Amino acid sequence: MSDLTHFNEHGRAKMVDISGKNETKRIAIAKSCIEMKKAVYENIVEQKNKKGDVLAVAQVAGIMGAKQTANLIPMCHPIPITGVNLQFDWQNQEKENVKLVITAEVKTVGATGVEMEALTAASLAALTVYDMCKAVDKSMVIGPTYLVEKSGGKSGDYKRDQLSE
Amino acid sequence: MSDLTHFNEHGRAKMVDISGKNETKRIAIAKSCIEMKKAVYENIVEQKNKKGDVLAVAQVAGIMGAKQTANLIPMCHPIPITGVNLQFDWQNQEKENVKLVITAEVKTVGATGVEMEALTAASLAALTVYDMCKAVDKSMVIGPTYLVEKSGGKSGDYKRDQLSE
Amino acid sequence: MSDLTHFNEHGRAKMVDISGKNETKRIAIAKSCIEMKKAVYENIVEQKNKKGDVLAVAQVAGIMGAKQTANLIPMCHPIPITGVNLQFDWQNQEKENVKLVITAEVKTVGATGVEMEALTAASLAALTVYDMCKAVDKSMVIGPTYLVEKSGGKSGDYKRDQLSE
Amino acid sequence: MSDLTHFNEHGRAKMVDISGKNETKRIAIAKSCIEMKKAVYENIVEQKNKKGDVLAVAQVAGIMGAKQTANLIPMCHPIPITGVNLQFDWQNQEKENVKLVITAEVKTVGATGVEMEALTAASLAALTVYDMCKAVDKSMVIGPTYLVEKSGGKSGDYKRDQLSE
Amino acid sequence: MSDLTHFNEHGRAKMVDISGKNETKRIAIAKSCIEMKKAVYENIVEQKNKKGDVLAVAQVAGIMGAKQTANLIPMCHPIPITGVNLQFDWQNQEKENVKLVITAEVKTVGATGVEMEALTAASLAALTVYDMCKAVDKSMVIGPTYLVEKSGGKSGDYKRDQLSE
Amino acid sequence: MSDLTHFNEHGRAKMVDISGKNETKRIAIAKSCIEMKKAVYENIVEQKNKKGDVLAVAQVAGIMGAKQTANLIPMCHPIPITGVNLQFDWQNQEKENVKLVITAEVKTVGATGVEMEALTAASLAALTVYDMCKAVDKSMVIGPTYLVEKSGGKSGDYKRDQLSE
Repeated sequence: MSDLTHFNEHGRAKMVDISGKNETKRIAIAKSCIEMKKAVYENIVEQKNKKGDVLAVAQVAGIMGAKQTANLIPMCHPIPITGVNLQFDWQNQEKENVKLVITAEVKTVGATGVEMEALTAASLAALTVYDMCKAVDKSMVIGPTYLVEKSGGKSGDYKRDQLSE
Repeated sequence: MSDLTHFNEHGRAKMVDISGKNETKRIAIAKSCIEMKKAVYENIVEQKNKKGDVLAVAQVAGIMGAKQTANLIPMCHPIPITGVNLQFDWQNQEKENVKLVITAEVKTVGATGVEMEALTAASLAALTVYDMCKAVDKSMVIGPTYLVEKSGGKSGDYKRDQLSE
Repeated sequence: MSDLTHFNEHGRAKMVDISGKNETKRIAIAKSCIEMKKAVYENIVEQKNKKGDVLAVAQVAGIMGAKQTANLIPMCHPIPITGVNLQFDWQNQEKENVKLVITAEVKTVGATGVEMEALTAASLAALTVYDMCKAVDKSMVIGPTYLVEKSGGKSGDYKRDQLSE
Repeated sequence: MSDLTHFNEHGRAKMVDISGKNETKRIAIAKSCIEMKKAVYENIVEQKNKKGDVLAVAQVAGIMGAKQTANLIPMCHPIPITGVNLQFDWQNQEKENVKLVITAEVKTVGATGVEMEALTAASLAALTVYDMCKAVDKSMVIGPTYLVEKSGGKSGDYKRDQLSE
Repeated sequence: MSDLTHFNEHGRAKMVDISGKNETKRIAIAKSCIEMKKAVYENIVEQKNKKGDVLAVAQVAGIMGAKQTANLIPMCHPIPITGVNLQFDWQNQEKENVKLVITAEVKTVGATGVEMEALTAASLAALTVYDMCKAVDKSMVIGPTYLVEKSGGKSGDYKRDQLSE
Repeated sequence: MSDLTHFNEHGRAKMVDISGKNETKRIAIAKSCIEMKKAVYENIVEQKNKKGDVLAVAQVAGIMGAKQTANLIPMCHPIPITGVNLQFDWQNQEKENVKLVITAEVKTVGATGVEMEALTAASLAALTVYDMCKAVDKSMVIGPTYLVEKSGGKSGDYKRDQLSE
């Protein structure tokens, strides 16, 4: 456990200096989740069958959001992302509350990690699903949103058990 | 319960036409939450005492994020936000896992609601807390993120019970 | 025929003052077009059948691009867009060079027109198709891109014959 | 001829992984064109003589647009552009319909090419000319817009004959 | 003299609620200034004679910057700007240190003023002049930058004496 | 003393080609300043004591602004910033007009310098202080804003005497 690093000697927030760090290949995977009533799920599936596709829009939002991360998270370094991939998995389709699990994988060759990019991509994809389905039901709940794993960089790899969604 | 509205007659996504809707005063309140180990909480509190302030940065991120909503959520209408306010509340400070509850209230005088702006503000504030504390612990979990209430507009007011956080 | 209006008394570019204009409902429709070899067309159709969809991405790009217009076109006024709709039509599917016609309709209730938003939406949708297919063929050609019609506002409606595409 | 590359194994759009590609010097040149009535051309020339300059604004729009490419084209990688240059050439100045040919050259040292940056720069410059002259005439037509050549990168150089403009 | 208004009851920064304010016509004028060695001034004038124009680029930067104000200044409300005009005046052209005075006028019909938009436009125009001339001399000094006058809105008009530049 | 470099052979503005320059560690430090009546200063100090903090918001604005530099200054190259730090120093606290000196230090490992990023960060921090205090007093004056020093890069280091603030 270390101290918070984003503060200067006056105690004020700063963007940490990473000038001395090497550029290495890095990957981060984050998950988010959105729970919705079965009726919303059925609308999404039905619309998909008619060529429209809520998840296609959410996927674009996640990918474009990954590229905006450093403009949204104040102390985040701008990083040249080299790849983004989002996956959607349905759970509990037979239950009253269906879950959509969103997995975002982001890659870079850079001097710092892409955890925030993966978390931002997953979050914005979930928010986009909410936006496109809120006319049907406003009670959808987003989360848990969390980092699943990261690799690359001096601080070492990180991997956690997936939360039961 | 109505159908999904964000699709045109070819089944493709569109930004819904709100040209005919009246501009009225609208409010939306959303909540998000981030759970962290006690050590992270203590770091935040300690840093605050030294003049630095993770939550001050998160608050700016939430407010600026509210203004970016229509640039992040593809089918979201650009709306002239007239006010944003974020509140942070700590819970379970005596337990092993402490919770920070984030409440975002957004106001507009416009032709459509600001639910997405409130949800985006709360989400980005949570992501910013994650970013500034991830050097201490990467296992923080964000969510549940959800709409608490909205008022104004023809579709009527909405209010839900708060989730036990 | 009038003079150029975007210049001040020193002859320098300015954003024209529209403070005195009334907010009225306005619509603009623009078209663009991208011509591609039959092989590219077949790839797009085949991918669509496998659930992927180049045009779904292009549609999101067009809608999000419409919202960015005032940030891209220097003298363009920021306008609260109230609706965006894009339509794709294939032509000459049996010929060697197939055409994809993109029609973008943008609406606002504002003090100036949305011609630039419609033209920008159509252009960015075409550029996105190019981007996603350029690994197959780089010789695709974009255009003609032009304003089809506009209505609303004091300068009166405008409608032109569609170009043979 | 290869397949479309911007899709994952579920058939959904992704940003292609370029983590393994080398950073090399790359150049792309694109052209666009805008055709206008002689009266518009004469207005531009006359304004220029009075110190105002439509093309100076279009040039800035093209250069700034090149830097926005990855924020506009969803699957486009963010690339550190190292140079942008736009050139304007008038054609058919003696005819009823005058043409302005826009050539955009973009350079980078990066892991992928800058074709989209060059095409976006040329397109936005053309749209800016349209915007600043549309008070005189709305019937201007943009295009053909196309890639003239690219060099650098493993996929080899590309060069095409210029379209008769 | 009133208290600072940008803080909520917890003492944290907020975007002030202006939902109840009327939309009125508002104008703000700000000035900035950049002082440079005579050699820089002569370069700018000489380049202008060769068709290039530092000030044309600065003017576009100022106008586009005015539109970005709410994305740059955290507590600033997004406002639909209805007009922007920048003027450049040279002073002391015969002295060792020449001054370029930049006057930015911004208009809106909105619920709050455009002082920040005018100050941001003038500042970014000055920074752009610095950028384009810094290869000649890095010792240029920007400022004083200040609000000259504002009108419209309930808080009344404001006008100050111009600083001796 | 050299010529202006941001112009092509037609005399038009261009983004200078830096493809051939080496990526080296670079630092730039800029200063800005905002002068305010004692009453404004006292409000800021008092608010800080109540947990609110104008300077915390200004600091975030400066850091986020540094990341936006290439989107604001037309001919500026996009650079991967590796660190940003802002410092605030009060002067003349006992006099009628108190001064807040803002020092911004920006670092990169890149092919060109970060002078503009440092100047933009300092300027936007000053503008944010103005925004948050303008309800108390609109007569605050920003500047002088200038480059203090830069190091790294082929053109050599630069250091100037600090202006008497």
